[in-house]
Amino acid sequence: MNNKKIILASASPRRNQLLQMLGLDFKAVKPQIDEEFHTCLSVDENLYNITKSKALYVKENNNLANCIIISADTIVLLEHKILTKPADTSDAFNMLKSLSGNWHEVVTGVYVTDADTCKQIYKSKTTKVKFRNLTDDEIKSYISTGEADDKAGSYGIQGLGSIFVESIEGCYYNVVGLPLVLLETMLKHFNISIL
Amino acid sequence: MNNKKIILASASPRRNQLLQMLGLDFKAVKPQIDEEFHTCLSVDENLYNITKSKALYVKENNNLANCIIISADTIVLLEHKILTKPADTSDAFNMLKSLSGNWHEVVTGVYVTDADTCKQIYKSKTTKVKFRNLTDDEIKSYISTGEADDKAGSYGIQGLGSIFVESIEGCYYNVVGLPLVLLETMLKHFNISIL
Repeated sequence: MNNKKIILASASPRRNQLLQMLGLDFKAVKPQIDEEFHTCLSVDENLYNITKSKALYVKENNNLANCIIISADTIVLLEHKILTKPADTSDAFNMLKSLSGNWHEVVTGVYVTDADTCKQIYKSKTTKVKFRNLTDDEIKSYISTGEADDKAGSYGIQGLGSIFVESIEGCYYNVVGLPLVLLETMLKHFNISIL
Repeated sequence: MNNKKIILASASPRRNQLLQMLGLDFKAVKPQIDEEFHTCLSVDENLYNITKSKALYVKENNNLANCIIISADTIVLLEHKILTKPADTSDAFNMLKSLSGNWHEVVTGVYVTDADTCKQIYKSKTTKVKFRNLTDDEIKSYISTGEADDKAGSYGIQGLGSIFVESIEGCYYNVVGLPLVLLETMLKHFNISIL
């Protein structure tokens, strides 16, 4: 078992809760980077750049040594169009309206690196999600709860958004923001076991 | 909007948390019934009998009026064999060993009734779940955490068991023990809206 400290380079309360659920001893540090997507790059190239930037920002701004850094980023893909976090309530309304009654994809990129050796692994996971039909009133009520504000695609599957999701195909935790089965496999390569 | 009280006829902390997540104002009451499965009946017949018994037990033993009672029961099906809660750690080991590397099905039956009018609706939902390959040591470590003890199929997808589940097809919350999209639709028939 690796005795290095685990650092979660993320301010997401959801990722924080997931690592707690796995019983991992870790510290969360917020990265401050530009999360802009570049249309000239593929989804994976974008996610790799963003997750690597998050990890490096946290490493360089906190003088971290003897630790393993985990970072992740999640996007929603609807017919190859990328949906990130909504700019405002009108943006959130349009996103949810477009997701209503349709399948979309959620992609999370995960980056793990050893701060000392610079060994790094990047992987991503895709989960398909089917929304039931939503009425405009339901969408407005949902947005008024504030749950859409900070979430890719304007919904949280682990909150009230749960009643929008008819079915998924793939890893559920990938939709929440951190694919746990994938992360567990990646951590094994750094001699970190969860069980 | 219905102004009747909502009663959850269940001692399950997971179902309790899910209703809280939906922001419902409810009270949980523990039913004490025989949850035995009868092999001469179908899965749905068994789930209907058990969920109805739970709701009726809670109604009759608590002098409930002016309320809507919700009950649910979850089982795991592996090649048509029903896996309920493990009898002991050896039973849990055998269940997890049989789930390792395979797809299985999780079926939850949901029963909702109006205590006054006796209007009742029963529905069930099935979700397919794929486990990754587990080593005997992983299974033993998992069982030693106690998480398997009170769960159908000997695992909790909302806990450490999350790192066993490679993929699902269907409703995630059905695997946790309460299919929220289905419940939301059923509650609408009793004039209860979540959003």
